[in-house]
Amino acid sequence: MSQAGPSSFNESNSSELVAQRLLRAKAGPLARFLATVVDHLHQIVRETRPTAADWRQAIAFLTEIGHASDEKRQEWVLLSDLLGVTALVEEINSRRPAGATPNTGRGPFYRADAPRLALGSDISLDGVGAPLTVSGRVVDLDGQPIAGATVETWQANSQGFYENQQPDLQPEFNLRGVFTADKDGRFHYRTVKPAGYSVPDDGPVGQLLGRIGYPLSRPAHLHFLIRADNFETLTTQVFERGDPRLDEDALFGVKPELVGDFNRIAGQGRDSWSLDFGFVMIMARKGSRAA
Amino acid sequence: MSQAGPSSFNESNSSELVAQRLLRAKAGPLARFLATVVDHLHQIVRETRPTAADWRQAIAFLTEIGHASDEKRQEWVLLSDLLGVTALVEEINSRRPAGATPNTGRGPFYRADAPRLALGSDISLDGVGAPLTVSGRVVDLDGQPIAGATVETWQANSQGFYENQQPDLQPEFNLRGVFTADKDGRFHYRTVKPAGYSVPDDGPVGQLLGRIGYPLSRPAHLHFLIRADNFETLTTQVFERGDPRLDEDALFGVKPELVGDFNRIAGQGRDSWSLDFGFVMIMARKGSRAA
Repeated sequence: MSQAGPSSFNESNSSELVAQRLLRAKAGPLARFLATVVDHLHQIVRETRPTAADWRQAIAFLTEIGHASDEKRQEWVLLSDLLGVTALVEEINSRRPAGATPNTGRGPFYRADAPRLALGSDISLDGVGAPLTVSGRVVDLDGQPIAGATVETWQANSQGFYENQQPDLQPEFNLRGVFTADKDGRFHYRTVKPAGYSVPDDGPVGQLLGRIGYPLSRPAHLHFLIRADNFETLTTQVFERGDPRLDEDALFGVKPELVGDFNRIAGQGRDSWSLDFGFVMIMARKGSRAA
Repeated sequence: MSQAGPSSFNESNSSELVAQRLLRAKAGPLARFLATVVDHLHQIVRETRPTAADWRQAIAFLTEIGHASDEKRQEWVLLSDLLGVTALVEEINSRRPAGATPNTGRGPFYRADAPRLALGSDISLDGVGAPLTVSGRVVDLDGQPIAGATVETWQANSQGFYENQQPDLQPEFNLRGVFTADKDGRFHYRTVKPAGYSVPDDGPVGQLLGRIGYPLSRPAHLHFLIRADNFETLTTQVFERGDPRLDEDALFGVKPELVGDFNRIAGQGRDSWSLDFGFVMIMARKGSRAA
């Protein structure tokens, strides 16, 4: 036993000493993951040089995030989303060849039990908002239609709220539906134009980031989850071109391939809108998450 | 407004994009701190390449740490301690010239209200354990005595528990006391020999790290908090030379200057022990934390 060993804990080798302990016993994936985390935690301390009081404040904030999280509210997910970590995890796990529609996060408002509807149905159950007709086509990388693809869609209403955020104000399953594409891979339905919205800013994460003027809003968008046999499931969002928040989506979900043209159709009394969008799916690899 | 901007969120520039948002509005200390944190969070993701499921598991663990923390138990502090972050923060904030006694953390068991006692008092109120006589001297960097220095001490008992961990088993203020050094900077008191102990391993942090065989014990030690007018307050610990856990202190507090010789004195019936230790304080800088 070397009693000089522990002496060496200092600014330049601290994370190495921790890593040695982590990797000595069982150098499994968890230990290796933690060693990387520790390396970066120590780098954060060396680069930002917090006082002991600063560090206590950081600990208090981390504790508060946990205390504010429950069944209905996940502040850790929100923090991960707002700091681009969720989008980065998505990015490294869903590399797609050029031409394929990019994946983006499913987000917290998805419901697995939305009703199956006939093509052409109206998913706006309360009729509040500017009418929007959505049509789309699902094809493979060669442009061949994917007949019978299952297209789930969900969206916020004209005020920027999902029905499960407003169970008392919106009908259940408002602005949600599951459609089956026809033999040409085409689908269409009626809805209302969604509004953009702010992520929750009344918890510790929103409060902290709001204080420094960090962008907390999302541009208007529609969600799609598209499944087809032998294809990788596509989870994505289509954003409204021209939305001023397009450059600052709080969740880093906007990509140029996902910006769609919402065309205004002048009408008597009120305008209506149309959107046509193409989705390109890729073949499932063996053993990959096809469903 | 460039609508091509958001397109560029990808693995190589993701943290830069987040940093731009953070620093655009108010580039204060908080925004700069967060930008550094984000940079390293994204590096962790790039280096460890978690799947979406791995990331959900990490989020669940972070949430659990917060839920397990309350008034009595601070799992975030424990995690920071065990991963060497607390020791590193201490290290960068308390650089001391050669010859000065190093600072180490105060730890969670300190009580500010321990009784003032006359030199020579016995702080073991239940007499359980091997008797230990502690003597010490408080001097400045030139070796000159610091007359009247206030010396607070606290320690675990012979089973490795502090009195505030066992309110029903130990007398209040057992193994705690505040002494005043004499005109030669000397103090002495009687106590019992402390035992080393394990940090709590029944919470999410201890469970996780215990699973990979990470060291969770501390070698036997005495705590000291020494104050004197015009000197920087010294918070430190004296460890027992020969303790087999000296190289693996769970809290990274051991330094060679803090290892003391506990001398065994053979006695009738049972042995007793003595420790003599020197403490070297440094002058307070103007505006520094003197108290």
